[in-house]
Amino acid sequence: MYFFEDFAPGQVYELGFVQVHEEEMVAFARRFDPQPFHVDRQAAASSSYGRLIASGWYTCSLFMRLYVDGLLRNSSSHGSPGVEDLRWLHPVEPGDVLSGHFEVLKTRPSSRRPNRGTVLFSSEMTNQDDVAVLRMRGRGLFGRRSPARPM
Amino acid sequence: MYFFEDFAPGQVYELGFVQVHEEEMVAFARRFDPQPFHVDRQAAASSSYGRLIASGWYTCSLFMRLYVDGLLRNSSSHGSPGVEDLRWLHPVEPGDVLSGHFEVLKTRPSSRRPNRGTVLFSSEMTNQDDVAVLRMRGRGLFGRRSPARPM
Repeated sequence: MYFFEDFAPGQVYELGFVQVHEEEMVAFARRFDPQPFHVDRQAAASSSYGRLIASGWYTCSLFMRLYVDGLLRNSSSHGSPGVEDLRWLHPVEPGDVLSGHFEVLKTRPSSRRPNRGTVLFSSEMTNQDDVAVLRMRGRGLFGRRSPARPM
Repeated sequence: MYFFEDFAPGQVYELGFVQVHEEEMVAFARRFDPQPFHVDRQAAASSSYGRLIASGWYTCSLFMRLYVDGLLRNSSSHGSPGVEDLRWLHPVEPGDVLSGHFEVLKTRPSSRRPNRGTVLFSSEMTNQDDVAVLRMRGRGLFGRRSPARPM
């Protein structure tokens, strides 16, 4: 079980991998991001991408699942206030195998809540060719194993 | 049909609204973000949120659908390289009615491609109480109506 105190700058967590299935990828886009190059094979072929590619939000969602399974599930996570930078670096397509990586950049105890802290991280998804497809710098809130002493 | 030339700083687009349905909200979280406060009503009640709340990625996905229906669908969109700042400002819960707002901050013709340009925008989702639940500053790539003349 990971608590705030267990995180330290420079730590790297490998979050496992997931394969992209066209059926789910397209179903996600039909519901949430129905742009032609995400939902229609033929329209995608004549788009600037030249082929069907995943909605960036689908890629984020796949990352999130790896992050939950590979780390958050066994942690004192209290959610996240947000992401400071999110880049869709390279198109994701059906058949891709995406691996999740997570690196701790900084940790900061909460000034308001003695039982909490923030972990600033950098995360990445790479495909089977080791090309980065997604990069995010974000924050996670974690409970402390031992509350901070009043200062 | 919106082209790059049609966007100008200060323009505001109202993107319509969507109601949050518990069934889909929880199904999304089960698949992509199975943290207790997103998937389990009982566990959520004893979490720091005190109730079942939406995965932040679900909120982003709902925003994306409003953005596609309210703007991108009738545009020359070529996708997006990313988001510079993404904040989950307030918990989203079943029954919430979320409205999408989009404001153009800056436009910049592409230096590499005469037929493209980037629109820097700020977007927001507010709930039925007019509380902001999501804020994003991001970029969209749009085709030009007329290619730039060589400089």
